[in-house]
Amino acid sequence: MNKDDKILIIGAGLCGSLLALRLAQRGFMVTVYESRPDLRTTDISAGRSINLSLSGRGLKALRLCGMEAKAKEICIPMFGRLMHDTEGNTFSSDYSGRDNECINSISRGELNAILLDAAEAHENVALYFNKQCEKVDIENNIAHFVDYKTKEKFSVHADVIFGGDGAGSSLRKSYVAERAFLFSYSQAYLNHGYKELEIPADVSGKHQISNAHLHIWPRGDFMLIALPNMDGSFTVTLFLSYNEGEFNFENLTTEEKITEFFEKEFPDALALIPNIKEEFINNPTGPLGTIKCAPWSYQNKTLLIGDSSHAIVPFYGQGMNASFEDVYVLDEILDQNLGSWEAVFKAYQNTRKKDTDAIADLAIDNFHEMRNHVANPIFKEKRIVEMNLEKTFPTEYFSKYSMVTFKEHIGYNEAMVRGRAQDKALLNLITSNAISTAPDMEKEELKVVLKKVQQKTEEILKEALTGVL
Amino acid sequence: MNKDDKILIIGAGLCGSLLALRLAQRGFMVTVYESRPDLRTTDISAGRSINLSLSGRGLKALRLCGMEAKAKEICIPMFGRLMHDTEGNTFSSDYSGRDNECINSISRGELNAILLDAAEAHENVALYFNKQCEKVDIENNIAHFVDYKTKEKFSVHADVIFGGDGAGSSLRKSYVAERAFLFSYSQAYLNHGYKELEIPADVSGKHQISNAHLHIWPRGDFMLIALPNMDGSFTVTLFLSYNEGEFNFENLTTEEKITEFFEKEFPDALALIPNIKEEFINNPTGPLGTIKCAPWSYQNKTLLIGDSSHAIVPFYGQGMNASFEDVYVLDEILDQNLGSWEAVFKAYQNTRKKDTDAIADLAIDNFHEMRNHVANPIFKEKRIVEMNLEKTFPTEYFSKYSMVTFKEHIGYNEAMVRGRAQDKALLNLITSNAISTAPDMEKEELKVVLKKVQQKTEEILKEALTGVL
Repeated sequence: MNKDDKILIIGAGLCGSLLALRLAQRGFMVTVYESRPDLRTTDISAGRSINLSLSGRGLKALRLCGMEAKAKEICIPMFGRLMHDTEGNTFSSDYSGRDNECINSISRGELNAILLDAAEAHENVALYFNKQCEKVDIENNIAHFVDYKTKEKFSVHADVIFGGDGAGSSLRKSYVAERAFLFSYSQAYLNHGYKELEIPADVSGKHQISNAHLHIWPRGDFMLIALPNMDGSFTVTLFLSYNEGEFNFENLTTEEKITEFFEKEFPDALALIPNIKEEFINNPTGPLGTIKCAPWSYQNKTLLIGDSSHAIVPFYGQGMNASFEDVYVLDEILDQNLGSWEAVFKAYQNTRKKDTDAIADLAIDNFHEMRNHVANPIFKEKRIVEMNLEKTFPTEYFSKYSMVTFKEHIGYNEAMVRGRAQDKALLNLITSNAISTAPDMEKEELKVVLKKVQQKTEEILKEALTGVL
Repeated sequence: MNKDDKILIIGAGLCGSLLALRLAQRGFMVTVYESRPDLRTTDISAGRSINLSLSGRGLKALRLCGMEAKAKEICIPMFGRLMHDTEGNTFSSDYSGRDNECINSISRGELNAILLDAAEAHENVALYFNKQCEKVDIENNIAHFVDYKTKEKFSVHADVIFGGDGAGSSLRKSYVAERAFLFSYSQAYLNHGYKELEIPADVSGKHQISNAHLHIWPRGDFMLIALPNMDGSFTVTLFLSYNEGEFNFENLTTEEKITEFFEKEFPDALALIPNIKEEFINNPTGPLGTIKCAPWSYQNKTLLIGDSSHAIVPFYGQGMNASFEDVYVLDEILDQNLGSWEAVFKAYQNTRKKDTDAIADLAIDNFHEMRNHVANPIFKEKRIVEMNLEKTFPTEYFSKYSMVTFKEHIGYNEAMVRGRAQDKALLNLITSNAISTAPDMEKEELKVVLKKVQQKTEEILKEALTGVL
């Protein structure tokens, strides 16, 4: 590998554009082909999440590329969840007991535009839009494209090809189609789909409900969430089964039924969504899937990165953060001067795959937790203890959520393993009345709780390590 | 659903032909299209396992179709494993402590021929060979074929289409390609591949080594196994990494290196394989993969059955047995008169999928166990205790292997869950010296061991059920 290597990136979405920027900063010759029109000049939001959560890991990668400050200008910080019950009552739950720890609501399109501008400012970067990749000849490093406008087909040869082309990746499909390449692959769908709706700004352009929270209407088998936008609106997302339960996407086909559903389950949200019927009927219903695969690379020629290698469900707010962190980890590997792209790709997967597998599993866990546990008394008690521990011992205690979301210097896998053991320890100690869950404990008393939790967590971790079979 | 429904089965392999026979016996109109030539008139063994293990679950399904006696005529019973070390020493390990419990080595081709003959004897069955299914239009129940000889393309419409077309199923690929159908799918390859070799019969046509055993040469990272054939020969299979370790399929490319490998690792086997070099170089190396997917059916139109829905690795000797048991389970569901194919397909998957998932996982476990544990002292002690328990309490004690292989009236999943808990209990009791592992215990002493194992197993099962999180 050397600086003259021609690098082709398929996809100029969030991951592809950040990768282009970083590789350009490292001095490589980078060409990017994107199937969609340039989002800086065309409105192409339809069917994709309008806003996303940006937190520690994403910010870490943006910082590496000198983009943190620019991104923060369009961030709306959210310090906790605000839960809404069917009576319209709300209660809040902070994400962390530490001050200033928050996640950010950010516009996918605006962030992407900032990254494209920054990448394009480098003379060693060329961006092309409306070029759909149809397949990649991985043996000969050739990507085959079709021009969306002229319908003309053409091929591009490169020394290295990166597939930053998302969950429907054409590079990944080329891996699957290559029979001689033993490619392990899984796609797993939830029985739930999602649909986006909108709470508009009020007449003065302000947010109608708190913009410092991620709003959740948890209802067991389904839920509604809302994240604020800079223009005063909220993007609302309904997560609902395709075909199970009294109300589902297959049977919510009439205006009457849709209204009945929202009146019964989300009356306070309904009052804020004026175009509910039109939006519900016209906006697409999207599937929720997890994709895992291996190996990510083929020889010294190609690499999957971002969603193309690990699409996850959105319930931990980590999809974009995980993809950005991919770029950060790849950059660390490039610093090791391993000498060949093949060595870089192998070291990258070796470091990274356990972490993206972990966040995929954590996101599925949270799908269940957000719908159910948030209303479960024992989980509320656990949450109170954890908030107190984080407030009182901010450098010593981190909940699983905090490790995943705010402790960006440890990997997702470590966060998952330690976090799960800690959760198990806490639930164990609470159900056996071994620790107090009073909200007003003195520091000395809390110190005892902290020690017990730490000790039990270590026991559980040790047991898991030494367990026979 | 009614008896006039035209049924199309894609694939006339072991599962497709048994399914055709059973559906014909139930009075349905059955047409079968197979991509290969008729194996009763052509030698097409290349690249496929020549012999397979037939045990309780497979026999149960053959019995249902009146084929057990005919199959048994071509069975070679194997009562245990015979392990070979690098010095040529052997030691045996029975599959069960009960008399007469064995697995059978049977020729894939001969068994398939028997089933095809039996299916074809029914006037409501039509078989066609050399017709390759290219894809299935699942919405309109139309399968598209190409004739292998004339290259002519044609389509077949049916009321119901069964995909009995194996691990490379075209029906399953059509599910994957159908974007509107949320099809969860995984393919996972081991880093090991396999290659078949042959130990010929001696000059008088007899087996050169015991034909009452499955022979194993376990070597940690790789292994050789051999199963007897009716003609006095053995089919030998080498399981070896593609690219890891000192010796692997990628670097065993010269006659010298192949000979060096076998001389060092399998000297006694080498002496029995006269054509080792030619066979090693000319015979194909096959991959070892696990396929899981869901849902298996599409509406009231199509169903995946056998390997097409659950391809597994061969290390539990259950591939064919699992596919035959599919036919048995489907037949039980048909007895329930559920009224529609859709209801039948859903009930079938609901009953069956947990069991095929379980055998897929057990087969992977056994990949590790056969290579390693067979040589581990504690596993030998465990095996001694289990053999004694099965001998002394034949109706009360069943090892995990026995539950999977010989207790065909319980599902694979139950066998797995109980068997794993029992293994954990045994290893726990042995390592903590809570039970004796002496080979010559009195019945009263063994009774104490049995009670302790049963009690510990129940504890472990209960703990797994009640564990928080």
